[in-house]
Amino acid sequence: MIETTPAALEVSDISEASETSGPIETDAIVIGAGPCGLFAVFELGLLDIKAHVIDILDRPGGQCAELYPEKPIYDVPALPVVTGQELTDRLMEQIKPFGPQFHFNERIDGLVREADGRFRLTTDAGTEFLAKVVVVAAGGGSFTPKRPPLNGIEEYEGKSVFYSVRKIETMRGHDIVIVGGGDSALDWTLNLAPVAKSLTLIHRRDEFRAAPHSVEKMRKLVEEATVRLMIGQVTALEGANGHLTAVDVKTASGTERIACSAMLPFFGLTMKLGPVANWGLNLHENLISVDTERFETSEHGIFAIGDINTYPGKLKLILSGFHEGALMAQAAHKIVYPDKKLLFQYTTSSSSLQKKLGVK
Amino acid sequence: MIETTPAALEVSDISEASETSGPIETDAIVIGAGPCGLFAVFELGLLDIKAHVIDILDRPGGQCAELYPEKPIYDVPALPVVTGQELTDRLMEQIKPFGPQFHFNERIDGLVREADGRFRLTTDAGTEFLAKVVVVAAGGGSFTPKRPPLNGIEEYEGKSVFYSVRKIETMRGHDIVIVGGGDSALDWTLNLAPVAKSLTLIHRRDEFRAAPHSVEKMRKLVEEATVRLMIGQVTALEGANGHLTAVDVKTASGTERIACSAMLPFFGLTMKLGPVANWGLNLHENLISVDTERFETSEHGIFAIGDINTYPGKLKLILSGFHEGALMAQAAHKIVYPDKKLLFQYTTSSSSLQKKLGVK
Repeated sequence: MIETTPAALEVSDISEASETSGPIETDAIVIGAGPCGLFAVFELGLLDIKAHVIDILDRPGGQCAELYPEKPIYDVPALPVVTGQELTDRLMEQIKPFGPQFHFNERIDGLVREADGRFRLTTDAGTEFLAKVVVVAAGGGSFTPKRPPLNGIEEYEGKSVFYSVRKIETMRGHDIVIVGGGDSALDWTLNLAPVAKSLTLIHRRDEFRAAPHSVEKMRKLVEEATVRLMIGQVTALEGANGHLTAVDVKTASGTERIACSAMLPFFGLTMKLGPVANWGLNLHENLISVDTERFETSEHGIFAIGDINTYPGKLKLILSGFHEGALMAQAAHKIVYPDKKLLFQYTTSSSSLQKKLGVK
Repeated sequence: MIETTPAALEVSDISEASETSGPIETDAIVIGAGPCGLFAVFELGLLDIKAHVIDILDRPGGQCAELYPEKPIYDVPALPVVTGQELTDRLMEQIKPFGPQFHFNERIDGLVREADGRFRLTTDAGTEFLAKVVVVAAGGGSFTPKRPPLNGIEEYEGKSVFYSVRKIETMRGHDIVIVGGGDSALDWTLNLAPVAKSLTLIHRRDEFRAAPHSVEKMRKLVEEATVRLMIGQVTALEGANGHLTAVDVKTASGTERIACSAMLPFFGLTMKLGPVANWGLNLHENLISVDTERFETSEHGIFAIGDINTYPGKLKLILSGFHEGALMAQAAHKIVYPDKKLLFQYTTSSSSLQKKLGVK
């Protein structure tokens, strides 16, 4: 069964379940739910390798879905025109028979090899996995929130400045300041207004890039005085020991100090290689070096496919990531099933593959 | 403009045109119009490399169209289920903007390098090309007609035994024997009946694998006594110096001698590496060895993609041939445009690529 996140703001409980029942054991961990990560699930699945997929975003598609969901792509073979969203939907449909488990809104931070050769992976939400192979399909890296240019903001991060909210309850009773004018800023304004002691939305101009119906709802809350809307820019933070007490906001009529105990800035996402850089893999100009036979990194059992890898001739094309995933799966099979000989089969003629695909 | 052959039996005049006007000069020759050859046209086209495509079959699609046009394929990325025919149609649509020239029913036999570094290629129909790069995308090799097991048949081949007919006129006035029960045998029976002095169709049983309406038409010609239908097997050839005078046919009631001056056996197709084997390329177990950076053969400027090539990790998957074509095109660009620096661009964001694709 495929688990898709119904909405961006829904809080997943997967991590908690795992905390109580020990690490999740699986054949493969795929890091990244972009097109290459999704197709890797397919190629692994054909070889009976079960996968859990982790992505820092709240839905599948990676860059395609995040950066250009509606922009047409013209060079996916046999799809003369396809949007990032449609490509994602088609791949989700294609991997359905293999029932991958998705863990969205999580980032793999820790990776260590256990004595038995498996990898122990830990997410920033505390979820733990034990896997025989790891497939890094992380594209341009982790999508990371852009940090507002405010002096000393680092000391507040994670304590009273948050770039995402895992549990709405943790925000109950707070004087909240939300900064930004996009979908995230508006969605969180609407979601936190009912639990906040007070909520101030700050945006540099009185125009919003968010969905019109969200803007409408926000304006209604402002009319009702449930939410305060300020047109201006946060220029300074006040507080001590990571605990915010107020922010200074520069508006057209001067600077105003707003008392608050939590600030949520939504200034967009940027891509960084992220924790992958610390796993001891051979890197070349911030990309993971792989061979072209197995697309394996310098660490046996860790593979890298798609935009995040490099090798002679590498092109950052979606279609190349698909090819890399197919060859990777063959090598992964040797690790997951060391005693099974793999017979190469075609989906067109093999009834065993067709059975796995649920079409026979 | 894409040139598709409207019908299997239509005689192309491309070769004659070229005979009078010298060789066809082009950037690239793609040998094989299967999925990989077709997608190579796309990748070459994005880089302004014009291609002529040659295929021994009478239509695009290669093995997909010839061996399993209606059988579903499940592992083309983002196409959960696609038939060989649909895949071919989609690729033909995708390469339309680049106006490739197709030469069907022809096989590249000769390939030599000219003093200026270009390749001179000659087909079995006499068409000549001069090209800067050659892309061998010939799949399992040339589809070659199966030879009936008849003593001495070789000496008649090309003189009075034919496995295909290029010009219907060459058959005028002949006593023709056609052997077989599939579409080719039936189609040629219908097409040659009007020009033949006599026409005998021989098949081992009174059932035909051909299209029902062709069988119906044939039966009508038999009723009218325009065509003679014999149920039996050809067991011997009679003649001298390659000129057939009769064939012996074993039927249920004994052996009968049928006078004839031409025989057309249609026993199906088999795949052979074909003339490619004689071009001096490094081969490994009947496959062409290539590197994984450019997918270039041992001969600079000759590339090999798809099922016909081999390298460490090679899988005979359509999606791998697509990747190989993309990397090949980058290397081909260096040869076709030695002085132009190639800037890597995405179809999603580059207006110059979108212009070439006719969508901007």
